[in-house]
Amino acid sequence: MELLNSLFRPGVGPQAFTPEATIQALLDVEAALARAEADVGVILPATAEAIAAHCRVERIDLPRLAADAAQAGNLAIPLVRQLTALVAADDAVAAGFVHWGATSQDILDTALVLQLRRALAGIAADLDSLIELCAERCAQHRGEIMAGRTWLQQAPPITLGLKLASLLDALLRQRERLRQLRPRLLTLQLGGAVGTLAALAPHGLAVMEQMARRLDLAAPDLPWHSQRDRLAELACWSALLCGTLGKLGRDVSLSAQTEIAELREPEQPGRGGSSSMPHKRNPVACAVMLAAAARAPGLAATLLTALVQEQERGLGGWQAEWETLPDLLCLSAGALRQAEELLRGLVVDSDAMRRNLEASRGLIMAEAVTMALGQRLGHARAHLLVAECCEQVRRQGSRLADALLGHPELISLLNEDALHTLLDPDKNLGAADALIERVLRHYREQTDG
Amino acid sequence: MELLNSLFRPGVGPQAFTPEATIQALLDVEAALARAEADVGVILPATAEAIAAHCRVERIDLPRLAADAAQAGNLAIPLVRQLTALVAADDAVAAGFVHWGATSQDILDTALVLQLRRALAGIAADLDSLIELCAERCAQHRGEIMAGRTWLQQAPPITLGLKLASLLDALLRQRERLRQLRPRLLTLQLGGAVGTLAALAPHGLAVMEQMARRLDLAAPDLPWHSQRDRLAELACWSALLCGTLGKLGRDVSLSAQTEIAELREPEQPGRGGSSSMPHKRNPVACAVMLAAAARAPGLAATLLTALVQEQERGLGGWQAEWETLPDLLCLSAGALRQAEELLRGLVVDSDAMRRNLEASRGLIMAEAVTMALGQRLGHARAHLLVAECCEQVRRQGSRLADALLGHPELISLLNEDALHTLLDPDKNLGAADALIERVLRHYREQTDG
Amino acid sequence: MELLNSLFRPGVGPQAFTPEATIQALLDVEAALARAEADVGVILPATAEAIAAHCRVERIDLPRLAADAAQAGNLAIPLVRQLTALVAADDAVAAGFVHWGATSQDILDTALVLQLRRALAGIAADLDSLIELCAERCAQHRGEIMAGRTWLQQAPPITLGLKLASLLDALLRQRERLRQLRPRLLTLQLGGAVGTLAALAPHGLAVMEQMARRLDLAAPDLPWHSQRDRLAELACWSALLCGTLGKLGRDVSLSAQTEIAELREPEQPGRGGSSSMPHKRNPVACAVMLAAAARAPGLAATLLTALVQEQERGLGGWQAEWETLPDLLCLSAGALRQAEELLRGLVVDSDAMRRNLEASRGLIMAEAVTMALGQRLGHARAHLLVAECCEQVRRQGSRLADALLGHPELISLLNEDALHTLLDPDKNLGAADALIERVLRHYREQTDG
Amino acid sequence: MELLNSLFRPGVGPQAFTPEATIQALLDVEAALARAEADVGVILPATAEAIAAHCRVERIDLPRLAADAAQAGNLAIPLVRQLTALVAADDAVAAGFVHWGATSQDILDTALVLQLRRALAGIAADLDSLIELCAERCAQHRGEIMAGRTWLQQAPPITLGLKLASLLDALLRQRERLRQLRPRLLTLQLGGAVGTLAALAPHGLAVMEQMARRLDLAAPDLPWHSQRDRLAELACWSALLCGTLGKLGRDVSLSAQTEIAELREPEQPGRGGSSSMPHKRNPVACAVMLAAAARAPGLAATLLTALVQEQERGLGGWQAEWETLPDLLCLSAGALRQAEELLRGLVVDSDAMRRNLEASRGLIMAEAVTMALGQRLGHARAHLLVAECCEQVRRQGSRLADALLGHPELISLLNEDALHTLLDPDKNLGAADALIERVLRHYREQTDG
Repeated sequence: MELLNSLFRPGVGPQAFTPEATIQALLDVEAALARAEADVGVILPATAEAIAAHCRVERIDLPRLAADAAQAGNLAIPLVRQLTALVAADDAVAAGFVHWGATSQDILDTALVLQLRRALAGIAADLDSLIELCAERCAQHRGEIMAGRTWLQQAPPITLGLKLASLLDALLRQRERLRQLRPRLLTLQLGGAVGTLAALAPHGLAVMEQMARRLDLAAPDLPWHSQRDRLAELACWSALLCGTLGKLGRDVSLSAQTEIAELREPEQPGRGGSSSMPHKRNPVACAVMLAAAARAPGLAATLLTALVQEQERGLGGWQAEWETLPDLLCLSAGALRQAEELLRGLVVDSDAMRRNLEASRGLIMAEAVTMALGQRLGHARAHLLVAECCEQVRRQGSRLADALLGHPELISLLNEDALHTLLDPDKNLGAADALIERVLRHYREQTDG
Repeated sequence: MELLNSLFRPGVGPQAFTPEATIQALLDVEAALARAEADVGVILPATAEAIAAHCRVERIDLPRLAADAAQAGNLAIPLVRQLTALVAADDAVAAGFVHWGATSQDILDTALVLQLRRALAGIAADLDSLIELCAERCAQHRGEIMAGRTWLQQAPPITLGLKLASLLDALLRQRERLRQLRPRLLTLQLGGAVGTLAALAPHGLAVMEQMARRLDLAAPDLPWHSQRDRLAELACWSALLCGTLGKLGRDVSLSAQTEIAELREPEQPGRGGSSSMPHKRNPVACAVMLAAAARAPGLAATLLTALVQEQERGLGGWQAEWETLPDLLCLSAGALRQAEELLRGLVVDSDAMRRNLEASRGLIMAEAVTMALGQRLGHARAHLLVAECCEQVRRQGSRLADALLGHPELISLLNEDALHTLLDPDKNLGAADALIERVLRHYREQTDG
Repeated sequence: MELLNSLFRPGVGPQAFTPEATIQALLDVEAALARAEADVGVILPATAEAIAAHCRVERIDLPRLAADAAQAGNLAIPLVRQLTALVAADDAVAAGFVHWGATSQDILDTALVLQLRRALAGIAADLDSLIELCAERCAQHRGEIMAGRTWLQQAPPITLGLKLASLLDALLRQRERLRQLRPRLLTLQLGGAVGTLAALAPHGLAVMEQMARRLDLAAPDLPWHSQRDRLAELACWSALLCGTLGKLGRDVSLSAQTEIAELREPEQPGRGGSSSMPHKRNPVACAVMLAAAARAPGLAATLLTALVQEQERGLGGWQAEWETLPDLLCLSAGALRQAEELLRGLVVDSDAMRRNLEASRGLIMAEAVTMALGQRLGHARAHLLVAECCEQVRRQGSRLADALLGHPELISLLNEDALHTLLDPDKNLGAADALIERVLRHYREQTDG
Repeated sequence: MELLNSLFRPGVGPQAFTPEATIQALLDVEAALARAEADVGVILPATAEAIAAHCRVERIDLPRLAADAAQAGNLAIPLVRQLTALVAADDAVAAGFVHWGATSQDILDTALVLQLRRALAGIAADLDSLIELCAERCAQHRGEIMAGRTWLQQAPPITLGLKLASLLDALLRQRERLRQLRPRLLTLQLGGAVGTLAALAPHGLAVMEQMARRLDLAAPDLPWHSQRDRLAELACWSALLCGTLGKLGRDVSLSAQTEIAELREPEQPGRGGSSSMPHKRNPVACAVMLAAAARAPGLAATLLTALVQEQERGLGGWQAEWETLPDLLCLSAGALRQAEELLRGLVVDSDAMRRNLEASRGLIMAEAVTMALGQRLGHARAHLLVAECCEQVRRQGSRLADALLGHPELISLLNEDALHTLLDPDKNLGAADALIERVLRHYREQTDG
């Protein structure tokens, strides 16, 4: 489905998972295996180099490989066959040591880890960029007031800065999680047929350690061929990221509604047009982030389902991972890139935000009045009486100030000046600014630390 | 991820969803729209033909189209742009009527239906083949006895024919479901910007009916742009199919275990080998069917999640369908093709099946003995006493016959000849054969009817 | 989690799945089994009646049953034990024939079907009510104009009637699906230990047929203990329903936003209040429907995953169904009831709908103008020029009419009167009314038929 | 669905989420709020104590509360109403300060965190126990040899100790993840209506910090009412745990198959019986763990889907969490408890394990022979020739030793003594023991550290 890659996967993901990149990663693992074996004396250095010299994807017949995978049941078997033939043309002896002591899953799993590392490097960089951008825009819009909205209804005021700080806070947690899972994930798989390294005895452990060193991966305590939690954890992380970005997409698209018009996606020629309606500026980035958030849970669930793998090598569960995890990672990378583009060019209409604060004719300040009255009436009573006024406002289309001042029981309790303050959104932002500062401080610490 | 298509998607699916097929389907819809408009007098016949003449994917610059989709947010917008330019080179006036009165979603949705129809035609044919094959093999193995197994433990005997009849029964239901959903699914989408057909007024309905006729699709009661249950229903159907086939894969792979060895996948050179273990014949088809069954639920869940689409065109949910539904359908088509291949070449070792009947030293016939004794002792008491004998068999490695005949309370109740019959698997198949006949009769009726 | 049943499951579901209802259903199956066996001469009528007389949940020690389920692994085993003891107190011989020839799964599956039938009867009635109500309100608001909205942006006008007709159309399909799946679902399970009915030989089939008759269920072609597609199909149906209702919840809640205020949930004292904000009227029914739509896909996915059951009785998959399917059905029943309440009391503000048509200062009519100009300029050129005018409107806050009339290239092509008509939402509803009529006609046919 | 709690949720989970525990947790939060407000001078200490004195679930009318939740849309609103009335009976002024400055979500979210903490404390303890037990049994069975199995086919030998070390390794990662997520999760939510703490200004931050201190929770950088990744992360963790335990259940149940009979669940009277088959010992714990593994992905997907919450309070997504997360946690706690019971009483038949090593007549040692021959023939050639011998073994039912020694090309290359060693499973365990030691060392470090 490459037709939609530019839309759904603009990020760094797809390059790491093209057919060529996949096969090259497999070949990189074969080369590292051979060299590690030479390092510890299992094979001769010249043999290793004779093998490694052919570990280049350009030499592989990819269409034949893809066709052969059907019978073999995986990509490693036909690849080893082709590689052996290539090496044999130069060095018949070396050809005998291709893939020496390993099993298909060792190569497939370790290659996947290499590809995931490559993709994650880009994703981590994109996440850093998004975090930095989010912090900047948070600072930029720190004091810009807008209506809060709960249950899709207007509520007391917030600032755009607070909304962005809330996103920043979630992204910082997401970065922390990535830092924590990376060392678990970036781990070599080498176990041979069943995870005992028997085919490499007595050098199995040494080869494993050396191969990990060569690939700059961690050596596991023991092979993880049938315990797949590392991969499922990454799937969950990707889905968490998609969810956080999906919320951004939801919020921006809600704010971009015609009647609200507080935020808009970046304006670029041709962006978000409609084939029928010349007036449209559809929020394309939001759609991509929301689509990723709709797809990620099901894909992550597949990885979780696939954890139940049989004995020393799974049947079905393992194979279910092969396309699913890369695609999930690419979708999250794509959503991340779209989020960055969105946030960078986000058009903020502060006037509209302020105008919409008036839409409820004061109702959104009802809580503030209630708290003030509650000091004397108790909260429940105050809530009841103010709710009566709100109901009147809704029915009559009047303003809350008037309804309150016209309420026989309240009029004596309310000073008009004080009421003015209570009804002033700008004077009722609570700790918004201090909360933003807390998040920005955390951002600086995490980024520096 | 074409590298694995030959493994995971050997069926008819992928051809219907290649980039070329996708764009051609979109063009077919544009051509049908133009001609339907000419049919009812909205545009001139010559205009329609001038448009239709260019509706050929070979003329489209696919890489540019794919790149432009990022800004446009869908494939239809840049396609209409390219098509318009192509037509304009011949007929400037006709170019003005490309995509006349439609919106992107009309084209995208209807093209998707065309692609689904094409894929489903192949899938339905494959399903018919599998059903026929299953009926044949059911008849072939109708009386071949084997141990039943519940909770992965041996249980009273069944026949392989009964196991296949159970699969056949499920496949017949699945075919029935497909027949029921097809008319709902194969429905035109044409509504214009918001589903009122306003841009084609007063000819909207006429164009809709005529366009449906030209594409051999049903005309909907009203446009379904924001009610996507038809697509989600197909996703559920695909997942049901994957589940049924996954069960087949589970059962065959369990039966192929080294210690059981009753069934094996077809034997072909290179099939299911291992890169490390020369003795392996891995059940590749089972793995593919199980992998599809592990992936389908999450993909179907995405379509179900995506039902919640906003107002007159969704934001995120719609886009989440684009790649997910085709991929789900292709995976189920692939599993279907693998099932057919598996069932066609399935190797049945009747000797092993019979040998394994002895593995429990008679325990699997404990129920039969219980029922006989229960007539006199009551079921609970008989169950208890026979269970004691079973426990003895397990502890001592003896045979159930001996334990029963050695039991002080039972010996007087059991006649040795009668016991011999009770313990004879061949004499305890109950209604297995009659049940098979019921399913085969249903098969013949449904297939003929 | 009964605390939230009144909110999430106000429908008919939960009563069918209380502990008492569950155990009674199991007992009903045991009674029907005994009587069917008497009918065909397997046991004596008096024995059957002695058993049936105790098949009353009041006699069962539920806490002990629940505790015993842990060791037994299911509810049927300890229930049979209790039932046997109860019968034994009256009739020691009859006690010996309790559960005669059946296995736990026969009882559990058939009882589940009885409970599903009961719940579905209520759900079908609620669905009928909702459909009728939807048709009524569709007729009531048939001509009430409002802005269409795509990608959460205003688009050309629709009517509220059309929006409701679209919902009605989806509900009619959902009712059709239910009618189609019911005969598949409402099917007895009786197979004995492995599905051969061996323990009842030679009367197995006769007992099966007779038991089905007594329970007013279909007799299956063969037992379905390990082919669970019937249940998964119902799960998918429930999830489709939740999705359709979730869309209703999404649309109504979007329309209820403070700045839009076109639709509101029914107004009742205390409904949708906030503990902090006296002015709030939170859309509670929408939240429930949306929550159901968020939960249903994962629950349906579980049933789909569970299809892969091993051999003659599953291990894990079967058990995964037990709580999941009832809960999914109850959530969909709850969403249905909330939808009915919502639609019945839905507050429609036609003035707001009309007012919001003006929000874009004419932009939403840009398509109509484009179509008119397109006749002479070609669609692409017209689209481009009108888009320029739209951009001007957005930048300058002007009206589309003025922008069009001020455009040097367009002014000569536009007649002011004609433009007035093009920009009049009421004159651009296309086939909305005719489409509504198509759906209402279908509604009448399906309802009568 | 309490009927099945003893089976599915034997762990510590359910107690934390009973209706009583839920309401008490809500009341604990209200009491802590009041006292924190008194601590910083927002209300009087006596007022706080008058409120706190009534924060006891015994005083709450739960049925009325549950009924009122339907209109209110959540549990907090009717609870605050009842609490206010209770306080008012003693102290009318204090009643006025119940729930002062908070919103429903503050109370609901923080109470949920308290309940999660309580459940997690038990789960963490159970996880510690399981880890300790797993380490013990790993040491106990360290050298017990058994056939490895890949793709459900016999493969070269492993030890039971290695299999358990692999589980231990996964459980250690799972414990590490829990330690990492706990500080993120155990965080207070207090933000007021929209997260600005405006109703408590200027004391909002001070109340937040003090309330966190009183509840022994972390104070967040800013309220997390609409960023729900903490909860979704826990859901993913629970699903990862279920997956790991599901694999254990899969492996043990496969090993307990009649024909394999290497492992059995603990033997207890009545455990895993069948209502029809007296000989059955069904693996109940495995079924529970597998059922949890089948359900968890869908439930986790719901939490991931629910991340997309609107603006300052979600509509649908938030509500979807309420029952789902507790249920998921309880299912994982139940699976954990079952795993502990299973592992504690796991019956190991070392004789059967050794006997099954012979089942393939030497085939599983084919890799070892290949590696030896490969030194001289090259791997590919050796693989091919040994595969020919394997094929002969399969066809003729002979032994691999004989086939190898009878192969014209191989006989000259194989020394009979050396071959004997190559075919001896005990001499081909590779690094199994050293790998176990690595994991046990890690276990000791993590447990001590």
